[in-house]
Amino acid sequence: MQRSLKVAGRAKVPAFEVMSILHRVAALRAAGRDVVSLCAGEPGGGAPLAVSRRAAEIHLAGTPMTYTPALGILELRQAIAGHYKRWYNIEVPASNIAITTGSSGAFMLLFLAAFNAGDKVALARPGYPAYANILRTLGVEVVELAAGLESRYQPSIELLEAAWKEHGHLDGLMLASPANPTGTMVSGAELAELAAWCRERGVRLISDEIYHGIDYPEPGSQARRSVSAWEIDTDTVVISSFSKYWGMTGWRLGWALVPDDLVGTVDALAGNVALCPPAPAQYAALAAFGEESYREAEARVAEFSRARGALLEALPRLGWGECAPADGAFYLYADLGDALGSFANSSEYCAALLEAEGVAIVPGIDFDKVDGGRRVRLSFAAGLGPVIEAIERIVRFQARL
Amino acid sequence: MQRSLKVAGRAKVPAFEVMSILHRVAALRAAGRDVVSLCAGEPGGGAPLAVSRRAAEIHLAGTPMTYTPALGILELRQAIAGHYKRWYNIEVPASNIAITTGSSGAFMLLFLAAFNAGDKVALARPGYPAYANILRTLGVEVVELAAGLESRYQPSIELLEAAWKEHGHLDGLMLASPANPTGTMVSGAELAELAAWCRERGVRLISDEIYHGIDYPEPGSQARRSVSAWEIDTDTVVISSFSKYWGMTGWRLGWALVPDDLVGTVDALAGNVALCPPAPAQYAALAAFGEESYREAEARVAEFSRARGALLEALPRLGWGECAPADGAFYLYADLGDALGSFANSSEYCAALLEAEGVAIVPGIDFDKVDGGRRVRLSFAAGLGPVIEAIERIVRFQARL
Repeated sequence: MQRSLKVAGRAKVPAFEVMSILHRVAALRAAGRDVVSLCAGEPGGGAPLAVSRRAAEIHLAGTPMTYTPALGILELRQAIAGHYKRWYNIEVPASNIAITTGSSGAFMLLFLAAFNAGDKVALARPGYPAYANILRTLGVEVVELAAGLESRYQPSIELLEAAWKEHGHLDGLMLASPANPTGTMVSGAELAELAAWCRERGVRLISDEIYHGIDYPEPGSQARRSVSAWEIDTDTVVISSFSKYWGMTGWRLGWALVPDDLVGTVDALAGNVALCPPAPAQYAALAAFGEESYREAEARVAEFSRARGALLEALPRLGWGECAPADGAFYLYADLGDALGSFANSSEYCAALLEAEGVAIVPGIDFDKVDGGRRVRLSFAAGLGPVIEAIERIVRFQARL
Repeated sequence: MQRSLKVAGRAKVPAFEVMSILHRVAALRAAGRDVVSLCAGEPGGGAPLAVSRRAAEIHLAGTPMTYTPALGILELRQAIAGHYKRWYNIEVPASNIAITTGSSGAFMLLFLAAFNAGDKVALARPGYPAYANILRTLGVEVVELAAGLESRYQPSIELLEAAWKEHGHLDGLMLASPANPTGTMVSGAELAELAAWCRERGVRLISDEIYHGIDYPEPGSQARRSVSAWEIDTDTVVISSFSKYWGMTGWRLGWALVPDDLVGTVDALAGNVALCPPAPAQYAALAAFGEESYREAEARVAEFSRARGALLEALPRLGWGECAPADGAFYLYADLGDALGSFANSSEYCAALLEAEGVAIVPGIDFDKVDGGRRVRLSFAAGLGPVIEAIERIVRFQARL
């Protein structure tokens, strides 16, 4: 006699459409096809040279990579505090900085620490799907804010008020600026307004700032545009990462700025669910805050900027519909408009584009189950050359439809 | 007007008593005291030389450490399959092997995938506290099996039958062999019996095998004693790690053998909650399966064995009470017996021992909230020298009481 075993329903997250694109890219490349991929949500160049060099040194020196404190080594927490002084001119106590296993590790820890099962957390649609998937897996109810161009695809007071009316008390608001997939940002004034709205109502604001440092101020302006939620309110949670600005995606190293009331909980929880963030990455990441590494990262942002410029310039030739303003990160999120033609949805458009011209872009359905079927995300993290080549191929593809 | 923010009750895990011991060790050492610590649940020597060398090489070569597949790079999954062939003579498809961010990452993923909130999972008390803490944080009800010397502090059919009678249907059984804190193991026959009991009742067996390779067969016997649950039943979940046998704790790299019915769920979930395990560690860990690395690990196990021998030989001099048979791992779990003397509990004994003689050991309360107050865990991972020194100091400490 044998009883069947259970697969837990809560863990069943939807598969990403982009996975079938990525598998097909791998198959086409294996067959010798020249594929230009604008899928990746990551820079391809890897860590700053000084970080890789430091990593090699510590391994050659035979430093045993044993467990570190659950919230990371003190030197790195202090170095991150220095980074907040440098970029935002704010003093963040190292004791409020939790080093985590990528921003993913931070989301898991902070969602657990801030929200109980049954709580409600609002977030913008379109958005990064893992927010909702992790929250739902943890039993948190996700309240989608149908954000459009009028709010730069970001949460707004109007959307929040409407959600409050419909769903009752909200326990959290998830904000991402610059956002994935849209690349849009909230201004400092908007962030302050959202933070105040949350504070008045006891709503925990979680601010995903992993794309900070990658933005595109108007030519001539030297102003840094990304504003941190901790410049405004230290009861908010800030989540960030070495993955994007420093190009260290695979190292799995991120951090959170943790409000005083959550520090103890997050520390004890981290020791149980993660033990500690990766030790070699922690020691190596100390080198990310050297001048050489900042310069290298800025050079990369300049290359993203050139690629972005070419893409925005080509938009009229593509003849697409509404596009999100690509304020930051390295994404363009666009409605295909008339270019969708006879395709049933953007997933089919993307699949056909890949077969016909060897260009891989991501269908919007992964980011927005309601309106994403007409939309696509292009990543210009690959830089100017691939973007120019992709544009020509897309124009050719659409001319033949 | 400002509403207060919430700290989620589910995330409040108890702090570990050992943390206060570890903080005091750090303070004493900073003040120049010579402290012998038998606290660490990890070998201090670090990774095999070939692994560190490989890590240095990939960083010097400038290999960009970008995201890997969510379940890890195929080469490493295949190398782990080779390890199962080598050690257990079983064929494990690479597609059933999930590389994870330490065994901690595997527990989070597999607990989510196998159990819903409200499910019941049984585990032995004493046991590794993070099992229960993670499970409870995820809303799973923990059923403690009060395991004693008669079952080598391991779950038994008798304990399970009693728990079933008291709590009704169980959804899972968490097993660890060798176990932390006791070091005890179940035999192949016992494991088969437990697996069959689970299978008949639709109970998912999760087998923590992170200490495999670290065991102490009778002198003269060449038999490998650790039996994997996958030798018996591929519907069980096996969790393992590079941390203990290969000494790679801080690298945060582990794996799970995932039953067919959970593979899809775990893959999609991993992409959301972790993106991927640390890439540098994955590439470096390929070198863990070379002959040189196995030899290095075996030499370390031989040193643990010498330290264990000295500790077991000294037990009569310590005059403690019941000790768990130290079958594997690098732990001795003992009742202090008469040596507890006038101390209120083993936490106070441990604190006094540290002050008086500079020996740090872990009070049992972290592993067993019911009976741990009389017990202590000694780790002999530090090797023979520290163990001999610690014994002399403990004997002296007790003589003065």
